[in-house]
Amino acid sequence: MTGERIFLDHASGGPLLPVARIAMEKVLSGHGAAPGGGHREARESREILEKSRKQVADFLGTDDPERIVFTSGGAEAVQSAIRGWGEAAGKGTIYVSEMEHPAVESAVRRLEKTGFSVVRIPVDGEGRLRWKKVKSAGPGLVCVHLAHHDLGTVQDFQQAAAFAKEAKAGLFVDATFGAGWVELPEGLEGVDLLAVSGHRLGGPKGSGILWIRSGFPWKAQAEGGRQENDQRAGTENLPAMAGLGAALEEWKKKAEKIRESAREVQQALWDGIRKKVAMAKLHGAGLGPERSPAHLGISFAGLEAESLALVLDRVGLAVRGGSGCVTREMKIPPAMKAIGAKPEEARSLILFSLGPDRQAVPVSLAADRVAEAVQRLTSKLPS
Amino acid sequence: MTGERIFLDHASGGPLLPVARIAMEKVLSGHGAAPGGGHREARESREILEKSRKQVADFLGTDDPERIVFTSGGAEAVQSAIRGWGEAAGKGTIYVSEMEHPAVESAVRRLEKTGFSVVRIPVDGEGRLRWKKVKSAGPGLVCVHLAHHDLGTVQDFQQAAAFAKEAKAGLFVDATFGAGWVELPEGLEGVDLLAVSGHRLGGPKGSGILWIRSGFPWKAQAEGGRQENDQRAGTENLPAMAGLGAALEEWKKKAEKIRESAREVQQALWDGIRKKVAMAKLHGAGLGPERSPAHLGISFAGLEAESLALVLDRVGLAVRGGSGCVTREMKIPPAMKAIGAKPEEARSLILFSLGPDRQAVPVSLAADRVAEAVQRLTSKLPS
Repeated sequence: MTGERIFLDHASGGPLLPVARIAMEKVLSGHGAAPGGGHREARESREILEKSRKQVADFLGTDDPERIVFTSGGAEAVQSAIRGWGEAAGKGTIYVSEMEHPAVESAVRRLEKTGFSVVRIPVDGEGRLRWKKVKSAGPGLVCVHLAHHDLGTVQDFQQAAAFAKEAKAGLFVDATFGAGWVELPEGLEGVDLLAVSGHRLGGPKGSGILWIRSGFPWKAQAEGGRQENDQRAGTENLPAMAGLGAALEEWKKKAEKIRESAREVQQALWDGIRKKVAMAKLHGAGLGPERSPAHLGISFAGLEAESLALVLDRVGLAVRGGSGCVTREMKIPPAMKAIGAKPEEARSLILFSLGPDRQAVPVSLAADRVAEAVQRLTSKLPS
Repeated sequence: MTGERIFLDHASGGPLLPVARIAMEKVLSGHGAAPGGGHREARESREILEKSRKQVADFLGTDDPERIVFTSGGAEAVQSAIRGWGEAAGKGTIYVSEMEHPAVESAVRRLEKTGFSVVRIPVDGEGRLRWKKVKSAGPGLVCVHLAHHDLGTVQDFQQAAAFAKEAKAGLFVDATFGAGWVELPEGLEGVDLLAVSGHRLGGPKGSGILWIRSGFPWKAQAEGGRQENDQRAGTENLPAMAGLGAALEEWKKKAEKIRESAREVQQALWDGIRKKVAMAKLHGAGLGPERSPAHLGISFAGLEAESLALVLDRVGLAVRGGSGCVTREMKIPPAMKAIGAKPEEARSLILFSLGPDRQAVPVSLAADRVAEAVQRLTSKLPS
């Protein structure tokens, strides 16, 4: 099979939005002064920093920009959110599903070891958290993702917030997968902690956002200097801040167009694949408002995800085989187990993910390549 | 006073080395695939990552590149080193001075609260750690900086290593200030943990290095994904890695030239200032092998550092007033207290720092500006 490469692994990492790249390059070629000093160059850097913070605040819809912390990425934002709350609260109950991203899961387990109790939120067959099945076990922290990194399912934020309120618990929203693609609650109403990944929004690698509601118990995890309003020590990564700010400004302006464009590709890609490959099965919520428009998680029962992804690569289609984020022990994506997928489905999950660049995706060619790769592998299977 | 701006606050933040900027821009304009995937784009990213790791290994002189962890900066590297050791060791004695960078001090205090004991290493009047005055209190961790961030004094590494060996303690070298400017121990012999800041070497903001000797007790602090050989979770910041790798390759090639060039500027600047300003007093070790060639810490007793720095800025000289890194409570740089400087000296410390770009510094003009600013302020002092 010949022709152009098709890249559909944006969730793992994709190109910068041009506005972000331009903003970064401008700072990278500058004097590089740290924003913390008293001289003219420091003031110039401070202006860039504050502009970026304002762009982030506008994107988030918060009027509390001082509680925006620029982090080194989504993983740090998530870990800092949960562990920072744990350190400040000292005790409590954590409400969380068994299919969270490892960054969430490891922070929860770390707190569990120090005496926090953990209540697991069950999920339905499409990955929706079943709030009505959770019993309150007292105050603490509810951890919920905005959209699921393997399933694409969007969570019902209103239910999550209502549960947290009822339990007198705080609410942490892991929006590292989903921000931009899915609307954030207006004004961050009901949210106490929020984590965003920069690169999933066409922003820089090594950039992320942690937001903490004023007054919510939380302690800084990176200690040392006084940067970021004493919320994260370390010389500010100004190029990344500028790039992330620019990317989020673009999203603020064009989110609906970006989503609409992705929705069209998503629908056409899924239609093409299911037409050409009988065994293809979509996991998570169906296409529509309950699913991130940037994501398809499709199983090909009987095949191994990694082998299939390798053959797809050879025929010119770059995708992710297996969960986007698994640790060594997890041979099967925890989300597939949680939703009750069959083992042969769980082992054959392929993730197709789109970026915010609104480039034309040759959908029919992509579906042909999936069919071709499946054909190659199934013809080798013992009959 | 007219003419060009003179920027002498490189330790806080300065321009990228051109090789680093070029390396970053190349990655920033690329496909942005994460190195962890199975497709061609991921393999290309992996090649960039491994090249960068090799460049760092060559700079450090280690044959154990797998234990190099790319961090989001010096602050993270320092905190991760100390807290990661604390978590793995569980108990022990920490040997540390009272004039460390706040990133070190806060990590030490965090461990102290959980039961570690702390032995303070006294310092002499020029900031040398007085190893013969420290009594071993059992195994643990010796924390030593390569060069001091306010004083510029270079520590005697052999004595530190001998003390650590005698105490059966590990040795953490905070080289976030000093790496490049001061030789690292050959092959990192005697070092168990090492932290390096990228931007102080003309590398990117948001980049740093943590190195951990194989077999030394240490636990990853950033958990989640499996990046960096399970030593730091989070999507790899490939542009920063590439930029840091390129900067360190430049240092590997040209370190002696960079140092020599800085030494000349340092000497001429200090000669110029002391000739023109009678009250100027150099703190820390004298110029020579016991001092970082990139740094001068000079007091102007009777003046306030911040006011002087502001006037210097107005006459076209950007420097740092007061300690490079203080927390809110620290009105006086801890190092100035530790070396027994007079309060009026401690309150008037100005830091002049050079970068690795080997640009010509108009030294005489800089000294004139210092004299001019001092003159302006002293004429206002009550007589």
